Amino acid sequence: MDGTAGTGGTPRVGEVSAPGRVAGPDEGIGTAELALAARNHGLPLEALRYDTTPPGLHYVLVHYDIPAADAGDWRLTVGGLVRRPLGLGVAELRARPAVTHRVTLECAGNGRARLSPRPVSQPWLVEAVGTADWTGVPLAALLAEAGPADGAVEAVFTGADHGVERGTEQDYRRSLPLPHAADPDRGVLVAYAMNGAPLPPQHGHPLRLVVPGWYGMASVKWLRDVTLTATPFTGFQQAVAYRYRQGPDEPGAPVDVIAPRALMIPPGFPDFMSRTRVVHPGPVPLAGRAWSGHAPVTRVELSTDGERSWTDAEVTADPERPWAWAGWRTSWTAAPGAHLLTVRATDAAGHTQPLTAPWNRGGFGNNLVQRVEVLCVT
Amino acid sequence: MDGTAGTGGTPRVGEVSAPGRVAGPDEGIGTAELALAARNHGLPLEALRYDTTPPGLHYVLVHYDIPAADAGDWRLTVGGLVRRPLGLGVAELRARPAVTHRVTLECAGNGRARLSPRPVSQPWLVEAVGTADWTGVPLAALLAEAGPADGAVEAVFTGADHGVERGTEQDYRRSLPLPHAADPDRGVLVAYAMNGAPLPPQHGHPLRLVVPGWYGMASVKWLRDVTLTATPFTGFQQAVAYRYRQGPDEPGAPVDVIAPRALMIPPGFPDFMSRTRVVHPGPVPLAGRAWSGHAPVTRVELSTDGERSWTDAEVTADPERPWAWAGWRTSWTAAPGAHLLTVRATDAAGHTQPLTAPWNRGGFGNNLVQRVEVLCVT
Repeated sequence: MDGTAGTGGTPRVGEVSAPGRVAGPDEGIGTAELALAARNHGLPLEALRYDTTPPGLHYVLVHYDIPAADAGDWRLTVGGLVRRPLGLGVAELRARPAVTHRVTLECAGNGRARLSPRPVSQPWLVEAVGTADWTGVPLAALLAEAGPADGAVEAVFTGADHGVERGTEQDYRRSLPLPHAADPDRGVLVAYAMNGAPLPPQHGHPLRLVVPGWYGMASVKWLRDVTLTATPFTGFQQAVAYRYRQGPDEPGAPVDVIAPRALMIPPGFPDFMSRTRVVHPGPVPLAGRAWSGHAPVTRVELSTDGERSWTDAEVTADPERPWAWAGWRTSWTAAPGAHLLTVRATDAAGHTQPLTAPWNRGGFGNNLVQRVEVLCVT
Repeated sequence: MDGTAGTGGTPRVGEVSAPGRVAGPDEGIGTAELALAARNHGLPLEALRYDTTPPGLHYVLVHYDIPAADAGDWRLTVGGLVRRPLGLGVAELRARPAVTHRVTLECAGNGRARLSPRPVSQPWLVEAVGTADWTGVPLAALLAEAGPADGAVEAVFTGADHGVERGTEQDYRRSLPLPHAADPDRGVLVAYAMNGAPLPPQHGHPLRLVVPGWYGMASVKWLRDVTLTATPFTGFQQAVAYRYRQGPDEPGAPVDVIAPRALMIPPGFPDFMSRTRVVHPGPVPLAGRAWSGHAPVTRVELSTDGERSWTDAEVTADPERPWAWAGWRTSWTAAPGAHLLTVRATDAAGHTQPLTAPWNRGGFGNNLVQRVEVLCVT
């Protein structure tokens, strides 16, 4: 780029994007992936200690820019195939009966950077997760108020963040099947508060969707419109991105429900650069969290011998909070030397974390077990 | 690591660290650097729009783990060469006269990943900055209360975060010359609040030092002790890390005061993956922030022609807030094509941002001008 206008014809917006690709066999993280990693962030694993994650520690993934938003003049519209279109300010939503759900959200791309070959996108390792108390109005109540008209099959949610992605200029937009969106038991919220405070800018201020049990791409931030449609939504984030595909030309299967994962609070203390953990000989308490969008986590197992044998950890779940992570704890007696700790979760639907990464071209849903290197020193 | 105890002798803590190094000519960001980039985070540049940065958007750099801290039983001790050693709880500090300073903090490693060859460490591009209103007790007042004894030359600050770095096990620890620490005009604070709320965990809860005008490594988080010493501190973070060096064996010069930098709110909207900006033809307002630890920023210049010519932006600084970034604004008329926007700051002490990166082996203080690629489309 030389600062002069292009001479080869007028550029179009699609030209700014490169096609999706996977990294070469020896290709390290590049500048574009680093730029994403520097702005977005995961949960520092020691923050698994908090039952609810403070906003600056909860993972954040923003596709475009965080919009400048003023809660005072924000409007949420509900339209399309409804009998009574709605237009609501934040104060009007706050005046309605509120509910609070504790929900664990995880990015669909969590684990992407552990895949080989590595899909080139936001390069998460294992840390793209967080749990918060989200307060707002049940989406089901708003939809009942608007009254779905005959023939409505989906609810399409539009956020205020605007950008280009793989050649398509767009507002961020996703849908849910109407039976899911309108079912009070699914717990979908139009939220205006996180952990009792107004949403921070990066978490959707002033309004966002929260879809319990689904990867974070469904929980549209900076929510400004809900439109009921007669046909399934085929927009970019539904039909192009967020699909499980092996090759670039497959339609792929939709990314939706969160696969089970357990994470450990890394024991001992870290080496700054390698993040390898250091412990001293003797009993080492181990604890962490585990979750699944399919069903409650029923089992968390620990291996301290390179995954030859496993022992069960104690799992503590709150049945009143089915969408929040469970706690787990166990202990290990460390002896001098190098060790590999592995933890894996199983849910009540029979899903267990794999010992080899499930590869797909978008790098979604890689719930490979967590492996923590520990050096026990005297 | 195979899960069995080492057989080659008992490992020692220093073995967990690798020596500092620079990356090879074609070496992308590796897994260790990525692990740091995933836990620490910068300021998404659109957040330059906020006068003070919300906690989840302010840059964070944590050397080891965020400590588990309980404000109720936290004690800050002030000892060493003092006449009246102090031991203070957070409530006792909060009962003292409070001051609030608006301070821009920047990581000394900001810009490291734009160096070639790249020093291997936290790989910041340009975004490791933030500005907050910090409230607390002037350090000068606490030192006056403790009464420095004859011969005291430095104040050494110890944080509660513990780890290993380049072979040295340590609590995070830094010092300031006593004349600086004890000078009320330097504005050094023992802070307990950020933007009017208790410090978030990642910003030092419940107590931290804030050293206006110095890179962030001086502002020790999770502060638990201040010790006055008769000799300059030679600990790891003072004498080994945070030095400007060309080669590994030099003593190097200390990293201290923040070099000038201007950053722009990227105009238009981004491409998701490349972060390249897209605008439409016509007037494009441009704005951002600029700061220097040496002296107030007096000039911000913009180039839109590949740094052949520069125009002055309007700079707005608040003389009551000498340690906070200044605002700047100008406008640009975009024509179709690819453009490179460059912005640079100059301070009242005569320091100007360089057009080529100032290299050093630790990757500190790289205040190379910001360059923003923009595609203007119709």
